[in-house]
Amino acid sequence: MSQPVDSAVSAVRTYLAQHRAAFLDDLAEWLRIPSVSAQPDHAPDVRRSAEWLAGKLPETGFTTVEVWDTPGAPAVFAEWPSTDPEAPTVLVYGHHDVQPAAREDGCDSDPFEPVVQENRLHARGAADDKGQVFFHTLGVRAHLAATGRTAPAVGLKLLIEGEEESGSPHFRALVEQHAQRLAADTVIVSDTGMWSEDTPTVCTGMRGLAECEIRFHGPDQDIHSGSFGGAVPNPATAAARLVAALHDEHARVAVPGFYDGVVELTDSERKLFAELPFDEEQWLRTAKSHAAHGEAGHTTLERVWARPTAEVNGIGGGYQGPGSKTIIPSSAMVKLSFRLVAGQDPDHIEKVVRAWVTEQVPAGIRCEITFAPATRPCLTPLDHPALQSVVRAMGRAFEQKIRFTREGGSGPAADLQEVLGAPVLFLGISVPSDGWHAPNEKVELDLLLKGAETSAHLWGDLAETWRHAP
Amino acid sequence: MSQPVDSAVSAVRTYLAQHRAAFLDDLAEWLRIPSVSAQPDHAPDVRRSAEWLAGKLPETGFTTVEVWDTPGAPAVFAEWPSTDPEAPTVLVYGHHDVQPAAREDGCDSDPFEPVVQENRLHARGAADDKGQVFFHTLGVRAHLAATGRTAPAVGLKLLIEGEEESGSPHFRALVEQHAQRLAADTVIVSDTGMWSEDTPTVCTGMRGLAECEIRFHGPDQDIHSGSFGGAVPNPATAAARLVAALHDEHARVAVPGFYDGVVELTDSERKLFAELPFDEEQWLRTAKSHAAHGEAGHTTLERVWARPTAEVNGIGGGYQGPGSKTIIPSSAMVKLSFRLVAGQDPDHIEKVVRAWVTEQVPAGIRCEITFAPATRPCLTPLDHPALQSVVRAMGRAFEQKIRFTREGGSGPAADLQEVLGAPVLFLGISVPSDGWHAPNEKVELDLLLKGAETSAHLWGDLAETWRHAP
Repeated sequence: MSQPVDSAVSAVRTYLAQHRAAFLDDLAEWLRIPSVSAQPDHAPDVRRSAEWLAGKLPETGFTTVEVWDTPGAPAVFAEWPSTDPEAPTVLVYGHHDVQPAAREDGCDSDPFEPVVQENRLHARGAADDKGQVFFHTLGVRAHLAATGRTAPAVGLKLLIEGEEESGSPHFRALVEQHAQRLAADTVIVSDTGMWSEDTPTVCTGMRGLAECEIRFHGPDQDIHSGSFGGAVPNPATAAARLVAALHDEHARVAVPGFYDGVVELTDSERKLFAELPFDEEQWLRTAKSHAAHGEAGHTTLERVWARPTAEVNGIGGGYQGPGSKTIIPSSAMVKLSFRLVAGQDPDHIEKVVRAWVTEQVPAGIRCEITFAPATRPCLTPLDHPALQSVVRAMGRAFEQKIRFTREGGSGPAADLQEVLGAPVLFLGISVPSDGWHAPNEKVELDLLLKGAETSAHLWGDLAETWRHAP
Repeated sequence: MSQPVDSAVSAVRTYLAQHRAAFLDDLAEWLRIPSVSAQPDHAPDVRRSAEWLAGKLPETGFTTVEVWDTPGAPAVFAEWPSTDPEAPTVLVYGHHDVQPAAREDGCDSDPFEPVVQENRLHARGAADDKGQVFFHTLGVRAHLAATGRTAPAVGLKLLIEGEEESGSPHFRALVEQHAQRLAADTVIVSDTGMWSEDTPTVCTGMRGLAECEIRFHGPDQDIHSGSFGGAVPNPATAAARLVAALHDEHARVAVPGFYDGVVELTDSERKLFAELPFDEEQWLRTAKSHAAHGEAGHTTLERVWARPTAEVNGIGGGYQGPGSKTIIPSSAMVKLSFRLVAGQDPDHIEKVVRAWVTEQVPAGIRCEITFAPATRPCLTPLDHPALQSVVRAMGRAFEQKIRFTREGGSGPAADLQEVLGAPVLFLGISVPSDGWHAPNEKVELDLLLKGAETSAHLWGDLAETWRHAP
């Protein structure tokens, strides 16, 4: 690295060291608010959490701060324009609500009374997601201090929602409603993690999600399996046969048209995946599963990050109580979810799944299919200039080679990508041991500060990148 | 028919006409006792029903009458030896407990206050099974009156259980305990029906039943379908694939060895089935099903009466509530029942099913199989001399050609066949419209009396048959 870079790095570090204690005090205050969006009792706390953040952001320098109500929990919007009219606008996404947590669930201490031990901050929300939202406030101040600016090098917007842990039911509508005010050239999602403490990574995409429930109706009521068994179609058998037909012998999804448009991994992407220090035994322990199984010709990482899937989330029909009941059930039900990758269109998936199901249903069985609203996949190509900015900013903070991951899950980031038409980048410093959604959630303080440090370097790099973009 | 037969027929009819009113009064008294074995509140009524019958049988002439206690509801045993030491012994089986019934279920009147309307006796238990037990008391008295005997031509035993509507949980043990006292040359089961009022039939067999529950264990807990979907085995998929593999493309059970020993229908049996006035549309309405489906190469009647089956009675796993939950479930469950036909051994079925299931289970899924106690199939060949006696006795009562049916269900009759080593014959006069287990159960009075008339002719015929047996 050249001399100017080094001096910027040390200026940022100096700022962070000086403000670390106050930053952690503020974060602890926020973490004390039990903003559990899934529990109606905590609705006032979720609002208090939004108001706390809205009260804090002007201190950072945001010039506009608003609490946006939704039919559910409120979100926080903030804006801080750049002084440079040519600068790009960046929208940071995160959430201020948290998963439920209680001492009785196995927490070693009150999950809403933050504790620092061995350089780790323990509290519900420390990593998911208050800590990762809040490091940006420290990061942008360090950016100003290190560059002598009075406003960030990019136009900065924040959208911190309050219902992510409840499935973001009103997020899409909120984004559509405020699309103009949220307009941005790129979106930074800070709600993911890295490979590990030793292997800093940038996530480049999330899978999409299409979900449906299929109900199979057979006889008008449960009927006697002695009197009628062997002579009429059984809806539970029809449901099972559909599920069995969902994958072919290579564990590929057998629905015709399902893979239409799928963006295949390039050889170099597969190579990058393969370079990660992946331990399948360890992964299976995390999965609490007793074997790996999936699409032939792909590794486990490729299967969870870059391949579309079909999974049964639930199946039911007939008698499920103790003992036996000799019936042919009147109906059966299957819940399926499809994880989608870049290039797959949820509307097309719904169309081909409906056609395929209809074709499978045997005579005498009536079928109803209901699709839930889908989430689109998002993927930023490895050579995207904004992604390269994130990689450079992380590289300066971590002083290590930055590798790439993806996320197998699905999230509201895709709504931002779709409604705002902006590429989505992921900047997260959490590690798998942080215990998202589990008892004793924590964040590594060194990594949290590296997050702030990355943030401090990112805004200038993005502005520079935009200046040189074609 | 020759003159002596005619005179016997008219003597029996004269007796029945004279005693019809008293018989119906007695039966009504018994029907007023709500002997619902499935409802603990009615346990005293089930006992009262047993005691009522035990009090009534000595009036008929039975010389020994006992109430046999079980760990559940009591049974009634009665005996009336023949004066001829060479005469065969016949055991009549029926049950005195009834299905639940209440006006709120859609009964037009109190189901435990018998009503005669349009020559039909309406009451819970009128057909299933008090009426069909009780016609034997009138029949055996008519037999004595018509023949001038003081004791029946055969040694007569009755075993009338009190838990049939609750699955006969203690019946097998009761029969084993009293096997010596129950010893008989043949068993008459009066707990089935005929084809229709216009088509009198004899049932020649019931299917057996083997039942199992199979549990599939995958991940140690439900896991996230985004993080792990597509890369680990899903136990709900394993359960569905097992069910899908249960039948081949001809709807035959695909478990190797399942058909071992099956007694195939002869051409003449198939012809006899085909001669019955079967209306498949009507049958589908009764089944409340919207299509017929079953083993290729067999008619619907053959499928339900004479072919073994595999049916899913229940399937379950994962999330079955409203909406969706993006999990790979930790476990799934399937309940299967197999109807068995003559020649199939439940122990062999359990063995081949266990072997087959074990072979189907994919890596990473653990499987547990639990079998319930099985019921054996029973079948009396059409040329069996005792069956011919039943056919002749019915023929004299009905003055019509007697045809043959089978019963697709399974019952404790098989225990009698197995423990006592005696052939089982079925004598029932109930018709499909009688509404077993449904609101407004009834019995046709003319048919009930034909049952008594058949009983009156049967004992002499059986004694005669045994005299000429090799």
